[in-house]
Parts: sequence; structure tokens; C-alpha cells
Amino acid sequence: MKHISSEDIKGMEKIFRLNLINSSTGYKSANLIATKSKTGNPNVAVFSSVTHMGSNPAMLGFVTRPLSVARNTYKNIKETSYFTVNHIHERMIEQAHQTAAKYDEEISEFHKTGLTEEYLDDFHAPYVKQSEIKLGCKFLNEYHIKENDTLLLVASIEHLYFDEGIQMPDGWLRLDDAGTVAVNGLDGYSLPSLLDRFHYARPNQEVKSFFSKESN
Amino acid sequence: MKHISSEDIKGMEKIFRLNLINSSTGYKSANLIATKSKTGNPNVAVFSSVTHMGSNPAMLGFVTRPLSVARNTYKNIKETSYFTVNHIHERMIEQAHQTAAKYDEEISEFHKTGLTEEYLDDFHAPYVKQSEIKLGCKFLNEYHIKENDTLLLVASIEHLYFDEGIQMPDGWLRLDDAGTVAVNGLDGYSLPSLLDRFHYARPNQEVKSFFSKESN
Repeated sequence: MKHISSEDIKGMEKIFRLNLINSSTGYKSANLIATKSKTGNPNVAVFSSVTHMGSNPAMLGFVTRPLSVARNTYKNIKETSYFTVNHIHERMIEQAHQTAAKYDEEISEFHKTGLTEEYLDDFHAPYVKQSEIKLGCKFLNEYHIKENDTLLLVASIEHLYFDEGIQMPDGWLRLDDAGTVAVNGLDGYSLPSLLDRFHYARPNQEVKSFFSKESN
Repeated sequence: MKHISSEDIKGMEKIFRLNLINSSTGYKSANLIATKSKTGNPNVAVFSSVTHMGSNPAMLGFVTRPLSVARNTYKNIKETSYFTVNHIHERMIEQAHQTAAKYDEEISEFHKTGLTEEYLDDFHAPYVKQSEIKLGCKFLNEYHIKENDTLLLVASIEHLYFDEGIQMPDGWLRLDDAGTVAVNGLDGYSLPSLLDRFHYARPNQEVKSFFSKESN
């Protein structure tokens, strides 16, 4: 196995390091975060750091830099409190990636990429019509990560939309039925398929699949 | 599309809500975090919240509850500062899931699950021998997320180990060549395969694939 030390990492060329470190922690979620400014300008940008934070209350978080490409996303969330999280599906990966381009502030990535704004149940922020799983979120708090000057934004999940066919009777959403992708590094888009689903693990008991006959 | 509101979420049966909300934010990383206590007891536990935090310095984060099943992981990290992050590969999903069982503190999940401890370059914490991508990490800080009483632990990446064959010349690790899985919800294990990889997005320019002839 190849061994890379922290000294090696520090000495790497910037893009090489970005590619390596971004892919080293495993697959990441693939979402479009959409917002609308106080003055009505919609915005949509790709994020791979959206993470489950808890179920009760239903919360998620994501990491951003206030002055990055996603500065409009951050500004709009701070101004209006609302944003949406929209799964990237296999048919949308080119459009989703294109939202990362540095457009001028007054240009909506919706118009530039062919993604369609959709407004549901009087929510302030737009959803992405093409997404098959969408969440309406409300900003709760931000935490400044001082070690690298990033922000963790924490939000509540206020609305959830999905096609009923992808939900199992126990509440679980089968993401490969929805065509949701995962991100590998900065720029790789991967399509997962389910290997197995296991029952709650208990000591001294074999792991049981949801799909094996013995587990029924 | 089915619409679920925050009121619906609050009123759900607990397991149904866990399944729904855990799967609603998209795929999660699939890692085993391994530690060793001050007194020499090794520990390994499955985590789906490990997230890339930055490349320079190379940092990752993960979310935990101090008093959850992962209490030994948390205690050992606070006592010793060191832990390892080991990718879960398709051949290891049953053993990885079994680490979530509530074993007594003195029982090592390594012994109970068939996963093998491996010590590399005098690092305090054990790696998981069966993993094909492994990171040696050092605790930097913790942030208390007061909205749901969880902790975000932030750490530096001190060591990286992987098979050279999965790295592209620009630094990127191709995770499907390593057999790394992703997590769907609490208990679903999925195997991704790469759809495409795109060059840096620029305004008014078509998204270019790394693999198309025109992009060479």
C-alpha cells in the first residue's frame, strides 16, 4: 500500500491535494441547494457536504465558506432563513456540475443550466423541479470551524417531497429507486445500487438481511 | 409527489422517522472508526457521518453523541487524540454493520466481528486490515451542536494508505476501483459505480467529461 504522510500532503501541488483529500473520506451526498434573495433572485449550487444531523428534531448540516463560489447561497440563507436541498439524479449530473461555474450574481444558475425552479406550498425558496427527492429547510444556526475558517450551517427539515414508490413500509427511502447519485472527490458522479439492508445489530447474533427468507 | 410536513415528521413513530430522515439527505460515507483506549483496549465502530472538511490543512469531521453506542470511540479519542478512518468495502458490509451492536466495554468489536487490527508506522490507533483506504487522524476540536445535543468532532489527516492502482495521475482516488460502499439511511449498504467525471465548470462553456475525446 502507498503511504502518504501529513508532510507529503502539505508539500503537494494544490489541485493534486484537492483531488486526493476530497476523495479520501469516501462517497459524499450529491445535492443542489437552492435559495432566493430578498430581492427575488433565485440561485442554485451543487454541494457535496450535506449531512444528516439528527431525526428528532429532523436536522441536516452542510459546510461552506462565506466567500466561496457559494457566497450567494450563504447570503440568501442568512437574509431569508430558507433553502431547499434537492437530490442530484443520474440524468442531471452535467447540469448540476455546471452550477459550480462562477456566474455573476444577477445571473440565475437556473437559467444557465436548464434546471427548472419550482415553488411548492408557499415556501420562499425554489425547489429543483427535476429532482425526485426535495427538502425544504430552515436555517437554525451556524458554527465557525476555526481550524480552517469554514462554517457548518445547521437547519431543520420543514418539508419533504418524494415519489411514494421509493418508500418502504418502515419509512426508509430506497435511493437507487430514485436514481440519486453520490459524489467521488470534487468532480466524480457515481450511481450506487443497493447491495443489502440489515436489521439492527445485536451482540452474539448474526447480521440479518431484510431480504433473506430467515429474517421474515 | 408525496408531501410530508414538519408536523407529520414530529408525529411519526420513532423508527419510521429514523428510517425516513436518515435516508432523506442522500448517500453517506461508509467508514469504520477505530481507536485504542489508554489501557490498550481496541475498539471499532461503523460511522456514516464522516465528511470532508478541507484539503489545506487536510481535515475531516464526524458527528456523534457522547453517550451513544459509539461512547467508547468518543472516550478513546478524547483520552488519546488518535483514531483511524477505514473505508467499508463491499466484502465487509456484514462485519461493519455488526460493529454497531452494543457490546460490553471490555469486549473488542475486532474479536467479535472478524475484522483484523493492523498497526502502521507507530500510530497509536489500529487500522482495519481489510480496508483498502485508511486514514490516520488526530483530534483537533469539538463543536457542541446545541440544537440537538450532538458533537461535531474535527480532526486532521496525518496518514493516508491506499493501493496505488486506484489513484489517477491528478491525485483523485477512484473509489469504485477500491470497492468502497455508501450508506443509504441507517442500514442500507450500496455499491456505487462511476458515471462520469467533469472538468472545472466555467460560465458559458459546456461541461467537459474527463473521458471524452474532445477534452484531451
